[in-house]
Amino acid sequence: MRKTIIGVMGPGEGARQEDVDTAYRLGSLIADEGWVLLSGGRKSGVMDAVNKGAKSRGGLTLGILPSDEPEKISEAVDLAVITNMRSGRNYINVLSSDVIIACGMNHGTASEVALALVSKKPVILLNASQESLAFFQSIGENIYHAQTPEEAIGIVKRILNKQ
Amino acid sequence: MRKTIIGVMGPGEGARQEDVDTAYRLGSLIADEGWVLLSGGRKSGVMDAVNKGAKSRGGLTLGILPSDEPEKISEAVDLAVITNMRSGRNYINVLSSDVIIACGMNHGTASEVALALVSKKPVILLNASQESLAFFQSIGENIYHAQTPEEAIGIVKRILNKQ
Amino acid sequence: MRKTIIGVMGPGEGARQEDVDTAYRLGSLIADEGWVLLSGGRKSGVMDAVNKGAKSRGGLTLGILPSDEPEKISEAVDLAVITNMRSGRNYINVLSSDVIIACGMNHGTASEVALALVSKKPVILLNASQESLAFFQSIGENIYHAQTPEEAIGIVKRILNKQ
Amino acid sequence: MRKTIIGVMGPGEGARQEDVDTAYRLGSLIADEGWVLLSGGRKSGVMDAVNKGAKSRGGLTLGILPSDEPEKISEAVDLAVITNMRSGRNYINVLSSDVIIACGMNHGTASEVALALVSKKPVILLNASQESLAFFQSIGENIYHAQTPEEAIGIVKRILNKQ
Repeated sequence: MRKTIIGVMGPGEGARQEDVDTAYRLGSLIADEGWVLLSGGRKSGVMDAVNKGAKSRGGLTLGILPSDEPEKISEAVDLAVITNMRSGRNYINVLSSDVIIACGMNHGTASEVALALVSKKPVILLNASQESLAFFQSIGENIYHAQTPEEAIGIVKRILNKQ
Repeated sequence: MRKTIIGVMGPGEGARQEDVDTAYRLGSLIADEGWVLLSGGRKSGVMDAVNKGAKSRGGLTLGILPSDEPEKISEAVDLAVITNMRSGRNYINVLSSDVIIACGMNHGTASEVALALVSKKPVILLNASQESLAFFQSIGENIYHAQTPEEAIGIVKRILNKQ
Repeated sequence: MRKTIIGVMGPGEGARQEDVDTAYRLGSLIADEGWVLLSGGRKSGVMDAVNKGAKSRGGLTLGILPSDEPEKISEAVDLAVITNMRSGRNYINVLSSDVIIACGMNHGTASEVALALVSKKPVILLNASQESLAFFQSIGENIYHAQTPEEAIGIVKRILNKQ
Repeated sequence: MRKTIIGVMGPGEGARQEDVDTAYRLGSLIADEGWVLLSGGRKSGVMDAVNKGAKSRGGLTLGILPSDEPEKISEAVDLAVITNMRSGRNYINVLSSDVIIACGMNHGTASEVALALVSKKPVILLNASQESLAFFQSIGENIYHAQTPEEAIGIVKRILNKQ
């Protein structure tokens, strides 16, 4: 029975502390819903925090890793899928998620939001800048905006109910 | 906590009935050990059977899919990683597995055995032909041979104990 | 001797006529400089036009194709690299280009601009919207803006001279 | 106008001297026919030699590189396509070639021969071992055998004439 997978994308190194804190809470809420958490899997920034949040509530965590360096994998990842594709794995991240939540923004996250739109996947921008919102709404549909992790979870539920 | 992942590779369409039967038994034994089963994830041949075997014993199943066609995914796959890379995903299959077991042989499976050797992953050929054994032993180390699923599981345990 | 490769990215189906016209002129100017043109290679929109422009001046054209469907390849592509990776090939497009020029904008093009920034490649946005400029300048350096193909070529020359 | 692309696959480090010598001659013959040479593109073994052979006769050389390390690219590669996919690029090598010639054998080359068979591409094994021939003929059609570069070129011509 296929499980529901929620992908959380966000910066690794250089992530803002507020995005890291939000990611931890978001991970715990995803686990509470019984959804599998998918992320880029690295031991850094939003990726590490969201996995730790999910594990704090007993969730199942799936990481899609850019390289085969075991020391760079978040210790809170249960299942490590190794691609050796560097940022080429960003496309796999979004294809494998039922809904994508972007928590913070940098080039890598922007590529994932754009590829999600290419793949017609719903995307929630969490606490996004005006520039991000204006740009992605100018090129895509299926773009949602949330101010808090709780609001993002509510949007995910509505999206899943419609599918 | 990273879980141990055992990859089982084998033909989809055109698989021999004996390889399909063996795959089902192998999947159930992998689940009994508490290992995660990784496969190519399609609803066909060895891929479908090994997932069904694992689910018959309550195992966790991870499928690395070549395309985003949901109707082609084995119903016994819990976690579907969608790559849209066609046979390019074969490399991800082997990189993500701690040990690879080849159950049956065709071109696709041969590419996975070869890529496992490239990646220095241990490979067990289950009930392989003389030609397969002779060839892969001529180009690689880390090649094991088993006659039955039970023997293959024993070899996996010895390999994991050494790591 | 490695040749200089200029990547031109832009919409396929649904491209605006003005972007298609600009792409043709841009392709011809790239060929005039003796640079190799790289594109997504499909027989559609900006991709098709930029290749035709380059061939109109005897340039060499390299297409990085998403699928193995020969009928979808632009007839103006000399060298077709087939990836079977769908939009996963967008990362290869930018990695293989010395400079990237975005001509028009949609989700796919946005993913290429973002991946270019990930890869620290210089990107020129040609005749971009305010939203595009504001967003990409908020997340990246190495972003240039040009109003015409001629201006874009001038920027490419300055970038290549610095390398 | 799409050009004919001949892919030559073979070991990098650890290549046998006789395979390196054969590759150089093969590259020069491919250039003499006006075909584009495709290879894995690295500055090592068969890959480096076949590119040098092609350039010695003024041929055009296309390298599909596993990483973005410029110092590892053969200096005889004209067009470097950078994938950052490590051995995942082997699939692109075969998809992009009209005919594949394997010159020497190791794990990486074996994966390319197997993936060529998956993709229904004709493969010529040049001066192959008994084990290689026996194995690949047991799993595939479209397998040819040649003893010399000249014989391989003759087979390529017959294959291209039939297409």
